[in-house]
Amino acid sequence: MGSLKLDHPQENNSNSSPMEMTSALDPVEFRRQGHMMVDFIADYYQNIDKYPVLSQVDPGYLRKRLPESAPDNPEPIETILQDVQEHIVPGLTHWQSPSFFAYFASNVSIAGFLGEMLSTGFNVVGFSWVASPAATELESIVMDWLGNLLRLPKSFLFSGNGGGVIHGSTCEAIVCTMAASRDQMLSRIGGDNIGKLVVYGSDQTHSALQKASQIVGINPKNFRAIEATRSTTFALSPESLKLAISSDIEAGLVPLFLCATVGTTATTAVDPLGPLCDVAKLHGMWVHVDAAYAGSACICPEFRHFIDGIEGVDSFSFNAHKWFFTGLDCCCLWVKNPGALTSSLSANPEFLRNKPTDSKQVVDYKDWQIALSRRFRAMKLWLVLRSYGVVNLRNFLRSHVKMAKLFEGLVAMDQRFEIVVPRNFSMVCFRVSPWVATSKGTPTTPTSNSFHQNGIENNVEKCTNEVNCKLLEAINASGHVFMTHAVVGGMYVIRCAVGVTLTEEKHIAMAWKVVQEHADVILKNHGDDGDAKLKLPLLDKIA
Amino acid sequence: MGSLKLDHPQENNSNSSPMEMTSALDPVEFRRQGHMMVDFIADYYQNIDKYPVLSQVDPGYLRKRLPESAPDNPEPIETILQDVQEHIVPGLTHWQSPSFFAYFASNVSIAGFLGEMLSTGFNVVGFSWVASPAATELESIVMDWLGNLLRLPKSFLFSGNGGGVIHGSTCEAIVCTMAASRDQMLSRIGGDNIGKLVVYGSDQTHSALQKASQIVGINPKNFRAIEATRSTTFALSPESLKLAISSDIEAGLVPLFLCATVGTTATTAVDPLGPLCDVAKLHGMWVHVDAAYAGSACICPEFRHFIDGIEGVDSFSFNAHKWFFTGLDCCCLWVKNPGALTSSLSANPEFLRNKPTDSKQVVDYKDWQIALSRRFRAMKLWLVLRSYGVVNLRNFLRSHVKMAKLFEGLVAMDQRFEIVVPRNFSMVCFRVSPWVATSKGTPTTPTSNSFHQNGIENNVEKCTNEVNCKLLEAINASGHVFMTHAVVGGMYVIRCAVGVTLTEEKHIAMAWKVVQEHADVILKNHGDDGDAKLKLPLLDKIA
Repeated sequence: MGSLKLDHPQENNSNSSPMEMTSALDPVEFRRQGHMMVDFIADYYQNIDKYPVLSQVDPGYLRKRLPESAPDNPEPIETILQDVQEHIVPGLTHWQSPSFFAYFASNVSIAGFLGEMLSTGFNVVGFSWVASPAATELESIVMDWLGNLLRLPKSFLFSGNGGGVIHGSTCEAIVCTMAASRDQMLSRIGGDNIGKLVVYGSDQTHSALQKASQIVGINPKNFRAIEATRSTTFALSPESLKLAISSDIEAGLVPLFLCATVGTTATTAVDPLGPLCDVAKLHGMWVHVDAAYAGSACICPEFRHFIDGIEGVDSFSFNAHKWFFTGLDCCCLWVKNPGALTSSLSANPEFLRNKPTDSKQVVDYKDWQIALSRRFRAMKLWLVLRSYGVVNLRNFLRSHVKMAKLFEGLVAMDQRFEIVVPRNFSMVCFRVSPWVATSKGTPTTPTSNSFHQNGIENNVEKCTNEVNCKLLEAINASGHVFMTHAVVGGMYVIRCAVGVTLTEEKHIAMAWKVVQEHADVILKNHGDDGDAKLKLPLLDKIA
Repeated sequence: MGSLKLDHPQENNSNSSPMEMTSALDPVEFRRQGHMMVDFIADYYQNIDKYPVLSQVDPGYLRKRLPESAPDNPEPIETILQDVQEHIVPGLTHWQSPSFFAYFASNVSIAGFLGEMLSTGFNVVGFSWVASPAATELESIVMDWLGNLLRLPKSFLFSGNGGGVIHGSTCEAIVCTMAASRDQMLSRIGGDNIGKLVVYGSDQTHSALQKASQIVGINPKNFRAIEATRSTTFALSPESLKLAISSDIEAGLVPLFLCATVGTTATTAVDPLGPLCDVAKLHGMWVHVDAAYAGSACICPEFRHFIDGIEGVDSFSFNAHKWFFTGLDCCCLWVKNPGALTSSLSANPEFLRNKPTDSKQVVDYKDWQIALSRRFRAMKLWLVLRSYGVVNLRNFLRSHVKMAKLFEGLVAMDQRFEIVVPRNFSMVCFRVSPWVATSKGTPTTPTSNSFHQNGIENNVEKCTNEVNCKLLEAINASGHVFMTHAVVGGMYVIRCAVGVTLTEEKHIAMAWKVVQEHADVILKNHGDDGDAKLKLPLLDKIA
């Protein structure tokens, strides 16, 4: 052990002489390569709309192009950057492309990027206050700033004995709050009763809830995904929650945790926080609000009403890395009772003991999260807030909403298409209706037409879904845009989620043109099957 | 909803005109600010040894300096950087300082930094293969590269039906593997038996194990931290494990999970993997190896023996962000049976459905981790491996070990000090022995001296611990170096952990000088209490 390089002369068989370790962080070389990388990335943004948005490579493409093992000797940054350009870029799906409308965006900005650079450069590990006071204190401060912008009740801020913390993801935020609620409940009903605890969401709740529930040891039989229907625009009905809870209590189970969503993934539906809390609080449940995507919008006064009722919940999270320009990862979580979190998640090994912690005058964020290590994520949030200011940030968000509205208007003008649910934020759910599309008469809609009154209805839906699935595949294969889908109430819908920093109105117009052109082709091909079946072109095929 | 900026003229009350959103990622401005930031960080590294290593601020310092709320209007990057310099830097504990010897290092390098820049710049979210094929494929490839460098058995590589994944932290790696083992076990013994499962480690195991166990719902009563003593140099004894398991089985409990450590936090002790597996495997337990710090060294042939026996375990993790130059965060985890992980952690909501996933020809890393979102961490690992090459990386690690050896030699030459445990890697555990220090006769050691044979022994230990605690405080308050402590076998020891990229031999020499100077003062003060009590200067005080 402890051998030196001279003991291993067989390895120094290259022409290059061995490097000094300190040169791996030599400031002069850092500067040279750093500038080169800034230019590389600036060029990437400059050219980003030239790449297919959705990567067109086949599975396994990269293993064919890269060597089988790590190189023995150093390679210059120039060679590496060339490989990035030739081998990595083609395999990227370009999340920062202005024509990326898939999933929800994960947008970045100059300020977010610079904040990440600072955080990486300092590379402090702020698990305890003492391990880097600035990291902890800046996080507490920006979380209070942001909480105020969202007009969260004071009970969620440090000044009101609550507090905020930055996690990596919503799933982590739910794991931590659910573990806290579980341990609180078990201390009341006895530690052996974990098998009785029940977790609730709707069938529109993000899969993070089920995963978190699985991770913290809730019996999978006790996870409730309550159906949310078109009648409530896919929001969770308090009445349904009440029924589910009653039935569980009758069965001897213990309601534990409700996750309400503001802005569901499929359709941006908004669960009614106040009425849901009224139900949940009767049973001493923990209520968490997942506003992963839509939370950002709530800094605009005109959107704030979507989180009305927030005063009744226990915890609230949103992902600044989705729609708040920080880049991955930055999930902002506030809790009313940090003590519940820390009593579940604290670990105080001797090697971390220190006077400030013992004094109880400081926050040690290690006890608010899963990991011990933590990155200095507050830096990018601070830079975003300062570089743009609240006025511009609100306008950025409004600008995305405006573009979604524009897209919605374009869809609405084409009678072959249908807007499936009312738009709440910057996402439009739509679909083409093929029986309408190929009809030469007055357009009919699936909810009003007579097919619904007989057995043919299911076939109509199935055929509509298939056409929309094909349409989406064709759009994405074009490389011009990338959108994704959802299935709600049995309907396959295409989602156009606006949220990338570089998106402009021209990209919206282009995206719509791509959708229309591919719809033309697909519907024409179906129509060509035979004039007599114009109104239901695919029925033959299905039957 | 969907209002435009013109609807809110009251907010545009500043002199600055509102920004276009796209300017937040304008390539020209990106370049300008990016270059500025590279220079800022290069300057930081250039001046880093001028700052006190451990931040000297008081709790609450930053709230006094920053405004109470986020600014309405944008601020220029120049102002922000000035604030970073004036208000953030003093509150940092400088983890990249060459005189940082605390905890374990979390070292960064130019390549790691550039990799993070690329990852942040692309900002792809590689939850599924299709969401960015390059992110998934590069990760699988570098994890195979690294697995080969560590000479992991083929069963841990993708080519052998195992595989590697990059997590954010060891705690996450343990949560995921423990959840997998839990669900495997519950499917055998029945889902209602979670309360019977038992988790094992030693009392030297990182607190991440207890936290993970708590998170996944293991009854806290069923967590075993088996005592590891100086007789095994603080490694977990297979015999003790056997006894603990037997007693649990007798009590009707079910042994589930063992975490063995290669390189414990307190003293870098190494648990004997082979013999521990022999015990654990008799009971069908999952064995995880946490080599968070020391795993990196195992790419050097002369250190590889520390993970002998790895073929018997189920999962293995180490933190490239500690001692492999990537910067935070990069925890490399390999598992033999990815199916166990994915069957616990899979969530397949409709909105993520896609053809490559359905074809089962691709890896979807979302099912290997807690969160859905994931950063492109493989990029920095790839850049580190390529920029330095294996030969240099090995030499970097050896160079740290050599410096630790140098420090160890300096300590050994000063008879007032004691090396507490044999050094395995790049960390030295030492302490001052005050009764020896002030003795004018032949030095005696606490294990050999006669005090141990009478009741005075505890007082001697307590006084020694107090002196070392004071010494460490004095060293750290100097700002010249930062070291931390551990308590093992009742002894308070000072840890000097070498691992920062910028550390050179001169910093080791300086660190030792700082230790000696402060020891001189502290021991002199104690000695001055009275000549008659030279051998036990603090006993009076304690008695």
